[in-house]
Amino acid sequence: MTAHVELAVESQARTAKEASRQLASMEARDRILGLRMMASELLRNQAAILEANRLDVDESLEAGLPQPLVKRLLLTPEKISIMAEGLLEIAELPEVVGEVIETIRRPNGLVIRKIRVPFGVVGIIYESRPNVTSDAAGLCIKSANAVILRGGKEAFRSNRAIVEALRAGLRKARVNPECIQLVADHDRSAALKMMTMRDTIDLLIPRGGPALIKSVVENAKVPVIETGVGNCHVYVDKSADLDKAEAIVVNAKCSNPAVCNAAETLLVHREIAPAFLPKVKRLLEAAGVQLRGCPATLRILPDIEKATEADWETEYLDLILAVKIVNSLEEAIDHINTYGTKHSEAIITEDPRAANLFQTFVDAACVYVNASTRFTDGYEFGFGAEIGISTQKLHARGPMGIRELTTYKYLVDGTGQVRH
Amino acid sequence: MTAHVELAVESQARTAKEASRQLASMEARDRILGLRMMASELLRNQAAILEANRLDVDESLEAGLPQPLVKRLLLTPEKISIMAEGLLEIAELPEVVGEVIETIRRPNGLVIRKIRVPFGVVGIIYESRPNVTSDAAGLCIKSANAVILRGGKEAFRSNRAIVEALRAGLRKARVNPECIQLVADHDRSAALKMMTMRDTIDLLIPRGGPALIKSVVENAKVPVIETGVGNCHVYVDKSADLDKAEAIVVNAKCSNPAVCNAAETLLVHREIAPAFLPKVKRLLEAAGVQLRGCPATLRILPDIEKATEADWETEYLDLILAVKIVNSLEEAIDHINTYGTKHSEAIITEDPRAANLFQTFVDAACVYVNASTRFTDGYEFGFGAEIGISTQKLHARGPMGIRELTTYKYLVDGTGQVRH
Repeated sequence: MTAHVELAVESQARTAKEASRQLASMEARDRILGLRMMASELLRNQAAILEANRLDVDESLEAGLPQPLVKRLLLTPEKISIMAEGLLEIAELPEVVGEVIETIRRPNGLVIRKIRVPFGVVGIIYESRPNVTSDAAGLCIKSANAVILRGGKEAFRSNRAIVEALRAGLRKARVNPECIQLVADHDRSAALKMMTMRDTIDLLIPRGGPALIKSVVENAKVPVIETGVGNCHVYVDKSADLDKAEAIVVNAKCSNPAVCNAAETLLVHREIAPAFLPKVKRLLEAAGVQLRGCPATLRILPDIEKATEADWETEYLDLILAVKIVNSLEEAIDHINTYGTKHSEAIITEDPRAANLFQTFVDAACVYVNASTRFTDGYEFGFGAEIGISTQKLHARGPMGIRELTTYKYLVDGTGQVRH
Repeated sequence: MTAHVELAVESQARTAKEASRQLASMEARDRILGLRMMASELLRNQAAILEANRLDVDESLEAGLPQPLVKRLLLTPEKISIMAEGLLEIAELPEVVGEVIETIRRPNGLVIRKIRVPFGVVGIIYESRPNVTSDAAGLCIKSANAVILRGGKEAFRSNRAIVEALRAGLRKARVNPECIQLVADHDRSAALKMMTMRDTIDLLIPRGGPALIKSVVENAKVPVIETGVGNCHVYVDKSADLDKAEAIVVNAKCSNPAVCNAAETLLVHREIAPAFLPKVKRLLEAAGVQLRGCPATLRILPDIEKATEADWETEYLDLILAVKIVNSLEEAIDHINTYGTKHSEAIITEDPRAANLFQTFVDAACVYVNASTRFTDGYEFGFGAEIGISTQKLHARGPMGIRELTTYKYLVDGTGQVRH
């Protein structure tokens, strides 16, 4: 079984590699047509996709999958429309492939052009949301990458139906449908195989929970971009405008607690803690948030739970907020650099010096002054769409759009130059 | 022993991390002063460095280390001067840290600045050349990164003496000397430990032979940039100017056969092979090059050795050149994409269409038209110095200078914005 799966994945990746070469040399308008046709075929095949999804959902319910997972898995006509619209939006994004990033003219007459090119084959390993299938394929086609998708087992029928529609769309646009590959495995061996295929997979992006990300980061021999784990903080400085602070803390925690850019810990300067904490507690508790405080916090809010070391480390992804009082800006920065995941961090302050120190010393992809961490998102940054949010420093940090799905190469034009 | 080494490396990396934070917030002029002092301390401590090197060399000779390795290890007053001059040149390079790469103004009033920042701690694992110690430390300090160096066992005394001088230089410039760390191990466990320290090492760069690179790429859990392996080709198209072709082939093979940007295989279009091959053979053989040909080549040059499949795959790093006749430009591109290592590839042609197809379809960091592959080098590209040549696509391709030793972060300034 395992050997068979591995051979199948290898063959798919090689096929994708060949297709990627055609894609890379294709005109932008042909890829745009491909994306439009992918959208229209998604809609045209809606019934088949919903039927496949129904089988996946039924099986998951029988298997006793937790309710939130089943909810993520469930497709509706509205969700399919949103997926199709997403593809149309991706189609209209400004072209990135072929851009001349820089031209260097050397004294010896060599002209060196640094131009933006696709990676080649991008692998995506993800979990139960079938919409990732369509979004990721769309972003890859737009950036002229072939894609090899390995979704969750429980969503396999849905993903297969979606990929069939997307490939039919490419075919109608006369783009090689082999640019989109779906791995047909039902065990871990295909994912593990993908992690080792340095010859064919140029970039691997895991999308999902911490366990999936960790497994890919630790096992992969192909270049990986680590995404998504966000233990984000809001620090309310002693000079904060408390109304802004309140609105931002509530927004960062409550507007969508299940996502990676939601805040998990509130840090408050001790000088304003007595004024700020009781105020924000009322609002947070009204929104259903459970607070967990450090000893100093408990002296101000005696009726909340006590926080333990584990709380500073945890990405709750839930209506829970850890609260810690700090003696200084420096202590806040230290706490964040110790427990944060280099995702999104915010300071609320009216003091430009404090803002500057925080932005300089906090080591994270996105460092906010007087705004909610929830803005870390490809749409909110104006990238149009995103493949994920990088929490590593190599290649790309923060929201990754189509530009981050490209690399570059140097084209060097000479007239017979040799090196002395 | 192993546990002790691991603890020591962990502690050094943590110390480097702390030092890196100071370095990142330091003015450019302070780092420049640091580099100048590093150069002057290298020269001032020349006697101690040469003495340490003598012990390393003696021990290596006794241990029967191959002659080329001993030669790489050997330091001279001239080599130390070159190292010091290299540091002074690095000091004068244009500043890259803090550069605003892009400013995005969003309709909601958020201002997003993408600014260039150092990685933090860069790990370098390398082999016997002690000059790498000084070059790598210089490039890291210039780009505001702390560095943790793990050189070859046979060069340990030399590296320790060099690092002591460099740290003394930093101290004189009032830069924290802990920014430069040398791992003091004598087995593999320190290198293996470095490959796993995701919390403290932000980027790992192996520099050395194929076995070292492979070991790092396959074992590392921290982000790695693969460098250096170059199985480079020169393709002489049917439309080539044969004088240019001759000069470039000889230069690409002979000017320094031991380096990664030297050519290893010559591909020749069959239409010009009868005119070109005998001509270039005379020149190459006069330079001491041994040729190994495909069957079609042997029909034109019957007295050379026969090439086997292994020859297409081998980076000789020696005065050997594999020769293959191809039926078309497409066959040349296919051969390169099959056997190349994505480093440097050249076409010799007077046909702009062939040049364009070659540059589009060859998947390599640097793709040349009518110039020698030997130009793939940080100095030759105008970067001033290089930490290595990347053969992967993530983050950086080709020569990596100080700019490639940086990442970015997004600084987002608001006035109380929350996400709806």
